[in-house]
Amino acid sequence: MAPCSLPVTPQLVEQLRSWLGEDLGRGDLTAPALAGASGRAQWIARAPGIFCGGALVAPLFGLLDPAVSVRLLSDDGDAVVAGQTLLELQGPAAALVAGERTALNLAMRLSGIATATAALVDQLAGSGVRLADTRKTTPGLRLLEKYAVRCGGGVNHRLGLDDAAMLKENHLAWSGGVAAAIAAVRGAAPWPARVIVEAETGAEAEAAVRAGADGVLLDEFAPGDLVLLVPRLRQLAAATAGRVVLEASGVQPDQLAAYASTGIDLISTSAPVTRSAWLDISMRFTADWV
Amino acid sequence: MAPCSLPVTPQLVEQLRSWLGEDLGRGDLTAPALAGASGRAQWIARAPGIFCGGALVAPLFGLLDPAVSVRLLSDDGDAVVAGQTLLELQGPAAALVAGERTALNLAMRLSGIATATAALVDQLAGSGVRLADTRKTTPGLRLLEKYAVRCGGGVNHRLGLDDAAMLKENHLAWSGGVAAAIAAVRGAAPWPARVIVEAETGAEAEAAVRAGADGVLLDEFAPGDLVLLVPRLRQLAAATAGRVVLEASGVQPDQLAAYASTGIDLISTSAPVTRSAWLDISMRFTADWV
Amino acid sequence: MAPCSLPVTPQLVEQLRSWLGEDLGRGDLTAPALAGASGRAQWIARAPGIFCGGALVAPLFGLLDPAVSVRLLSDDGDAVVAGQTLLELQGPAAALVAGERTALNLAMRLSGIATATAALVDQLAGSGVRLADTRKTTPGLRLLEKYAVRCGGGVNHRLGLDDAAMLKENHLAWSGGVAAAIAAVRGAAPWPARVIVEAETGAEAEAAVRAGADGVLLDEFAPGDLVLLVPRLRQLAAATAGRVVLEASGVQPDQLAAYASTGIDLISTSAPVTRSAWLDISMRFTADWV
Amino acid sequence: MAPCSLPVTPQLVEQLRSWLGEDLGRGDLTAPALAGASGRAQWIARAPGIFCGGALVAPLFGLLDPAVSVRLLSDDGDAVVAGQTLLELQGPAAALVAGERTALNLAMRLSGIATATAALVDQLAGSGVRLADTRKTTPGLRLLEKYAVRCGGGVNHRLGLDDAAMLKENHLAWSGGVAAAIAAVRGAAPWPARVIVEAETGAEAEAAVRAGADGVLLDEFAPGDLVLLVPRLRQLAAATAGRVVLEASGVQPDQLAAYASTGIDLISTSAPVTRSAWLDISMRFTADWV
Amino acid sequence: MAPCSLPVTPQLVEQLRSWLGEDLGRGDLTAPALAGASGRAQWIARAPGIFCGGALVAPLFGLLDPAVSVRLLSDDGDAVVAGQTLLELQGPAAALVAGERTALNLAMRLSGIATATAALVDQLAGSGVRLADTRKTTPGLRLLEKYAVRCGGGVNHRLGLDDAAMLKENHLAWSGGVAAAIAAVRGAAPWPARVIVEAETGAEAEAAVRAGADGVLLDEFAPGDLVLLVPRLRQLAAATAGRVVLEASGVQPDQLAAYASTGIDLISTSAPVTRSAWLDISMRFTADWV
Amino acid sequence: MAPCSLPVTPQLVEQLRSWLGEDLGRGDLTAPALAGASGRAQWIARAPGIFCGGALVAPLFGLLDPAVSVRLLSDDGDAVVAGQTLLELQGPAAALVAGERTALNLAMRLSGIATATAALVDQLAGSGVRLADTRKTTPGLRLLEKYAVRCGGGVNHRLGLDDAAMLKENHLAWSGGVAAAIAAVRGAAPWPARVIVEAETGAEAEAAVRAGADGVLLDEFAPGDLVLLVPRLRQLAAATAGRVVLEASGVQPDQLAAYASTGIDLISTSAPVTRSAWLDISMRFTADWV
Repeated sequence: MAPCSLPVTPQLVEQLRSWLGEDLGRGDLTAPALAGASGRAQWIARAPGIFCGGALVAPLFGLLDPAVSVRLLSDDGDAVVAGQTLLELQGPAAALVAGERTALNLAMRLSGIATATAALVDQLAGSGVRLADTRKTTPGLRLLEKYAVRCGGGVNHRLGLDDAAMLKENHLAWSGGVAAAIAAVRGAAPWPARVIVEAETGAEAEAAVRAGADGVLLDEFAPGDLVLLVPRLRQLAAATAGRVVLEASGVQPDQLAAYASTGIDLISTSAPVTRSAWLDISMRFTADWV
Repeated sequence: MAPCSLPVTPQLVEQLRSWLGEDLGRGDLTAPALAGASGRAQWIARAPGIFCGGALVAPLFGLLDPAVSVRLLSDDGDAVVAGQTLLELQGPAAALVAGERTALNLAMRLSGIATATAALVDQLAGSGVRLADTRKTTPGLRLLEKYAVRCGGGVNHRLGLDDAAMLKENHLAWSGGVAAAIAAVRGAAPWPARVIVEAETGAEAEAAVRAGADGVLLDEFAPGDLVLLVPRLRQLAAATAGRVVLEASGVQPDQLAAYASTGIDLISTSAPVTRSAWLDISMRFTADWV
Repeated sequence: MAPCSLPVTPQLVEQLRSWLGEDLGRGDLTAPALAGASGRAQWIARAPGIFCGGALVAPLFGLLDPAVSVRLLSDDGDAVVAGQTLLELQGPAAALVAGERTALNLAMRLSGIATATAALVDQLAGSGVRLADTRKTTPGLRLLEKYAVRCGGGVNHRLGLDDAAMLKENHLAWSGGVAAAIAAVRGAAPWPARVIVEAETGAEAEAAVRAGADGVLLDEFAPGDLVLLVPRLRQLAAATAGRVVLEASGVQPDQLAAYASTGIDLISTSAPVTRSAWLDISMRFTADWV
Repeated sequence: MAPCSLPVTPQLVEQLRSWLGEDLGRGDLTAPALAGASGRAQWIARAPGIFCGGALVAPLFGLLDPAVSVRLLSDDGDAVVAGQTLLELQGPAAALVAGERTALNLAMRLSGIATATAALVDQLAGSGVRLADTRKTTPGLRLLEKYAVRCGGGVNHRLGLDDAAMLKENHLAWSGGVAAAIAAVRGAAPWPARVIVEAETGAEAEAAVRAGADGVLLDEFAPGDLVLLVPRLRQLAAATAGRVVLEASGVQPDQLAAYASTGIDLISTSAPVTRSAWLDISMRFTADWV
Repeated sequence: MAPCSLPVTPQLVEQLRSWLGEDLGRGDLTAPALAGASGRAQWIARAPGIFCGGALVAPLFGLLDPAVSVRLLSDDGDAVVAGQTLLELQGPAAALVAGERTALNLAMRLSGIATATAALVDQLAGSGVRLADTRKTTPGLRLLEKYAVRCGGGVNHRLGLDDAAMLKENHLAWSGGVAAAIAAVRGAAPWPARVIVEAETGAEAEAAVRAGADGVLLDEFAPGDLVLLVPRLRQLAAATAGRVVLEASGVQPDQLAAYASTGIDLISTSAPVTRSAWLDISMRFTADWV
Repeated sequence: MAPCSLPVTPQLVEQLRSWLGEDLGRGDLTAPALAGASGRAQWIARAPGIFCGGALVAPLFGLLDPAVSVRLLSDDGDAVVAGQTLLELQGPAAALVAGERTALNLAMRLSGIATATAALVDQLAGSGVRLADTRKTTPGLRLLEKYAVRCGGGVNHRLGLDDAAMLKENHLAWSGGVAAAIAAVRGAAPWPARVIVEAETGAEAEAAVRAGADGVLLDEFAPGDLVLLVPRLRQLAAATAGRVVLEASGVQPDQLAAYASTGIDLISTSAPVTRSAWLDISMRFTADWV
């Protein structure tokens, strides 16, 4: 089974169209130097990493010219080595050149995220703790960046403000405490929506569980404190909501191992999105300039 | 004078609207916990760097609620220190919460780019050589990422495939050489469009200048080779096009100084966009929960 | 507190704009008979029911002319009687006439749904069982129709295919059983997404709970069967997921009371959306034709 | 000949895309449980009625996956019985599931309207009086709901504010009487646009015909009054505009027969749109889960 | 009363936004030379004609900056002389410069059409025959170009393929003659839609009237022939449809007078749209560069 | 080689879709008179000229029905004679009729511009001076109108405010002179963007060249004055920027020859866009009404 998959919705196709437009503007000025030519090209990884973005290549070039064909040699989520050929393209030269930069920019960015995610996920191997992302994503690219996190072995946190409710300090203050805030949200939200509370102290975390939170985000707790707190929260939950998902945030990458043994369910981090470099990939046009 | 400025076009406002929609989805589930409340918030830099993105804050929150007011304490392009307050917001709590993530994601990303650009620009100080960006930008964010490069002291290269023509190896091969390629492009392009040729050898660079290129991108040349080549190209240009812009690419960040004294005009690099981390900024809601 | 509230997102405003365009087409042909005039109008309920849609009136007319002012005399979710004045409008006659039909069509449709919902919710009063909607909604109006359900006292089920996963007979068949299907979904979905299984027999329901479903949709079970099944499922859940939401569907409106005492959490029905008539509301222009 | 037909304009295809997006949101969470599977499905009518919406099925699923094939077994406008198979679908399971709800919601809504229309049209059989719809339609669905009315045997009234002018009491008041109002409209409208006047008394109707109205909407007149008024209006018209279309509104469904013999041309009613239930249709996936 | 008026619908505002985007592209490069400045400007007619387009100026500049104020000194439809000041603008220099070209392009084009229309309308003065436009309009500008025709004293023909049906030779051939074609159209069209038949011989025109056409387009008939044909058609109409609108097309501008006395109702011509020059208008920035 | 070519970007296809929608509105009312029919048609030039717009025909009809086939008999840029068949269409009659007007309107407008351009270009034959267009183009059609200019043998000037900077009198006044204005623009613009200065006196032109302008627009200079000024400017340029593009504007069409020998590079004029008539083209449906 492919390690990760991406639904190419009609809305995503519209985004690809818009991104092509951003680069093409009023049209590629070099097109007259390509008139009528056809060609082939390969994508070559220039560094090792986890490939991501191949699923977008055919839909993207298809918007420019249905005569472009794409053959994927690596699946999204595959580990690749420097020099590895990732895919092959064939078709009208004008379309290959027009889509090159947009397609590579997407794949280099997404592969960079997948690679960075995998490096963190490796540190949690065997612990049962999953690595989750956040809503710190590049505007316009959230679905794709979250896809890259999945391809790197991570799990997605909520997709937006509308599929789960996270109550923070300011919500609790404005609505008069955790119980009132949860009640206000549950009164209006779809029933399947989970309610998560961000806690900065053990007392806040306990209050959240008592008030029936589905999850608690434990922000910047030391591993030693979590070892004591987690069982207490699980016990409280057994008596109320039945189950609570416990998530640590504010964890430095080099401390992942320490947190992995605290009994929490998830560690959420924006690092693969906010602190990763693009994976270098080049598009090499082949010699037979037909 | 502000070190950099951003035209907020109607099209950019539409992008802000779309990015808000990406995070809001079908609506913020926590809104019922904020109903009727008003509040204040501050943006605090959590690390030193060059701030960028403040120009977007008022237009973005204005789409959510015209009652939000924004007071900028730093301009885009300003150097800021950790702990510095960058701006203040006041208005309906539901709007502050709904726009928080999208606004911060933009500013953190752009400030990261500006900061990384400034670090490279500093290495070129006094040399007269300018640092330019590339078309390796995040799809959908090109104008903003190029704005961040300007705020960091860099200069923008072409904005897309339509405002200058860059002829690469494959163009030359398909169209039968550099002279033919330039002729094909000049025959169809608007007259103000510059034609730039990417060269990998001195001979290619000389051919490009002889054929009347407005600029030559010298890719992966050693500094020592450039020292010899640059004057030869300038001399050739004087006899043909009159002037040629010489640009080096493929330069490692730690070699900038070596290239700065080769006589070139520009060094172009994607590093501030593809290899920078986001600058950490937090939005702190203030205590008086009105 | 208002019984229900609607976030007027930038995207909803765009929908209002598009709906106005549907009625206006290339412009109101009667505008020349209104040139320069200003006027007042009232909305009058022509039948008793639950009002819904008032929250859209000001944003909608604001798109036509910012000079239109709206004064709401009833809140969304209020019970109103025949003849009751719901709101007052004042402004340029051309805008009042241009927006009249679109605004009324929305409010009449939504009020009809709210009214029908309230009639069903009343039958469940005191039982602790909540009435939920479904994804059977008019294309383009889902958020508004679900808002109307809330205004009528119901609770929303999932908003789309992306905020909770409902596994039906065909999913189970294609993926090789309930455990495999749940595993496939949980492996790719954001962690807060709940997984619900539709069951047609008690055995299927038990298998779903054992496999860790967050909810089970019990389709077309007789009340008597539920009375026996529900405690068994809750007991199973205590040993596995901790808690399970049990939902009955396929319930005829006249049987609600019978189901209310079976121990289930929710009854989901599309009837308020698919079987309700619009609540009649008229817009009466007042006598002083200024 | 098909009893009704629908032009699938490029704009309608865009609407289908947007409606799919409403249900899909960020993507179907159950897709991983369907990965790679193909399947078949049938649409089965669960109640007798007039089918409508089949024309949308192929364009809609085509947006999700061109590999989906659709075979229509009933045409729009056909009378169908409970249990009848309406159409068959075959293709990738992920696409069948992703489009199911949106396609059914459209067809159930439209078939409900067609069915209700046909029931009223039947009561006018043989009378020469046609049943017309109104502008009371669901925002966003006007063209489709009016198509459903045609499939039920009705005739469409104007499509929007821009293809015919209807002057109501308020127009007459603001512009200084029926003659002035008609003059103002005719002075600016395209010449083919008809001008219709809504009248509440015989005197108003006569004034409208004298002023050259193309049609008169006779609102809430008793059948007995119409019997006397209609010939008088036709006689007046012969001396002025030549011909006038006479339309009755405010007619209760059980009075249709009484109005059918009054000499009017049309009875307009919103009932098939505002008071109809959806026709129940289910999508049954077939046993061979390939 | 203003000789012509334009409903500025939300859809028209979106078009203005898109047209600004066409000129602005990624932003006005000269903006940094205007930073912070405010200014005034006047529009000056450089030739005599009928002004049209003033109604768009405030909405257009308002999209760029709400601080721009516009004072109209001439109304659309006014005759203006060379050198006349048409309007005054005041506001941020960057917005004045950014909108200048788009606003002038619209007004110069529309004023050219209005001017050309008025020249033709003058030739029909006193005849009772009206000058109508056609569907030969610039794609994207139909509503505005038809508005310009009204401002020049003409009347609009149908706005599109959807507000009146014009049956041409090919329709009649495909559907089996004029009676069958009219029946097919009337069976599906909204009842207020008029049906017009294009005729090239007297026999065709008579057949159309007998078949109940609402209008007949008499294409390329000599004036002498029309003098005989028109009364015959009116007599036929009296016995069938009651009234028929008779329209001549294919008339050369210098023959208008000859056609004006043939008894027809309308002369339709595309000349003001397809053969007019733009009216020259300049935007003069005033001396006090604040 | 084709004399001109047009990149059909995804964005252009969206424009075609929108223009079809403008004419189709809610659907072609005559479609029922064409149901099921197929046909053929030809485009016939009714006057001599330069054909332009053929490249749009297949993409446009393809949006209506992929079954329409188009065979081009003339390329864009070809000189055609009256009566010449330009292209042939075959396909469903409903699609042929639905697209006819929009396609012809585009081609007639563009062919008119190409024809007018060619007439001016002919006057410059052999002089080495090129004819350039301006930003005076119809809103929404700039790319197509500039394409028509190329098909007529002209060269495009800048495409918008963003691909070259033109500094006019007001820019110089606001920013404190030509040197300051150029510095402000160069400080923020992408490096390949050219800076052009509009000059009304020889002194202004010289100042512009001294300040390093890439081009100077010499507005309303007499040919005799240019003969003296041009060599002076070129000499100045050799000492500063190396090369300057000199462009004359405000030239009457009958004076082109006089300007052609002044040594300038370009004559820019809006006349082909603002003063040309549409080239008459008709679409003739063929006799075999299948």
